[in-house]
Amino acid sequence: MSGASPISIAILLYDGVTALDVVGPYEVLTRLPSAEVQVLAPGHGTVRDGAGVMTWWPERSLEMLPDPDVIVVPGGPGVEAACSDREIVEWLRAAHQTARWTTSVCTGAMLLGSAGLLRGRRATTHWLALDRLTDYGARPRQRRVVVDEPIITAAGVSAGIDMALTLAGRLAGDEAAQAIQLSLEYAPRPPYTSGSPRTAPAEIVSRVRAIAQVR
Amino acid sequence: MSGASPISIAILLYDGVTALDVVGPYEVLTRLPSAEVQVLAPGHGTVRDGAGVMTWWPERSLEMLPDPDVIVVPGGPGVEAACSDREIVEWLRAAHQTARWTTSVCTGAMLLGSAGLLRGRRATTHWLALDRLTDYGARPRQRRVVVDEPIITAAGVSAGIDMALTLAGRLAGDEAAQAIQLSLEYAPRPPYTSGSPRTAPAEIVSRVRAIAQVR
Repeated sequence: MSGASPISIAILLYDGVTALDVVGPYEVLTRLPSAEVQVLAPGHGTVRDGAGVMTWWPERSLEMLPDPDVIVVPGGPGVEAACSDREIVEWLRAAHQTARWTTSVCTGAMLLGSAGLLRGRRATTHWLALDRLTDYGARPRQRRVVVDEPIITAAGVSAGIDMALTLAGRLAGDEAAQAIQLSLEYAPRPPYTSGSPRTAPAEIVSRVRAIAQVR
Repeated sequence: MSGASPISIAILLYDGVTALDVVGPYEVLTRLPSAEVQVLAPGHGTVRDGAGVMTWWPERSLEMLPDPDVIVVPGGPGVEAACSDREIVEWLRAAHQTARWTTSVCTGAMLLGSAGLLRGRRATTHWLALDRLTDYGARPRQRRVVVDEPIITAAGVSAGIDMALTLAGRLAGDEAAQAIQLSLEYAPRPPYTSGSPRTAPAEIVSRVRAIAQVR
């Protein structure tokens, strides 16, 4: 790779995006020595995250980077509005044509679906939204990360870190990805075992389903 | 807790902070039903992260929230400058006096140390910086999360998620924390086992140490 131009990586922002969907992959991919990461948003001005507390000031708009090598599409409560935003969907559809990898985190998969990129493909998303992937002609898989080259989809929110490490390995080799994992000290030790509906207590699963329905 | 005022949580931003140190805890704590999270920075204007690509626009400055219930101090390449910033260190020292919990992620522990909060306490930080904790009179522990009430410190970068789930359990009970873990689908499956110097290949550990020295 020496002497080659850097890998250009575009991470999409939009109002209502989940902050960790963005920053998990961001923190991994900005540590790739051979990559140039940019954070893009439609139009100009600030972007507010899904929790409504964090405000970003993206320096680039979508039209400034029509042809990244890698696309990262995060999810979040704002994804349905984003799926109806022609500027976003058309940018994604066009950029995918020349990208080496198009990826999503959590319900970012719905944006890939809206751009017509998931037809016939294996894909995943947040466990609460998995069934909705069939609306886009995808074949849902309840897995942490699904690679259906050149598309990689990740499960809910925190799975973006695992997805990005997988992607880093594909882009720069296993040793580069392992070094990034170590620099992030990503040796997770959750204090509970409730990270998946298969391992969480049934009453916790019911509780999260109920909250999701009223949102 | 019903009827009580919400738990006020302050997450500190400063130039050169590591984005995931901020957003890991942010994503957990904004999901606490009984909490109000605010993102604070010294002065006014934008804040740039340690990778130099992401720009935040914090809406509050430190003097606007002198007495949060919970303080979260992230780390990053900018932490040394932050440790020399009197506004930050004095805010932290004063705010700690009335806080229920004061916490750090990664090298954010150095800020706690600079404010004199770690003397005689068990604490952790990024594995590369662990020895430096003794400069502040702390007793270093190579653990993911160290609770020495009312201070909680976390290991490098990604450990902020585990720290925040631990904190969420203390603030709102295990069931609330488990529901947050499930909503984030935090069932991590790193594609490699290189997240700790104890499990990474020796050549990867050497490589990360070498990169850290030149930075």
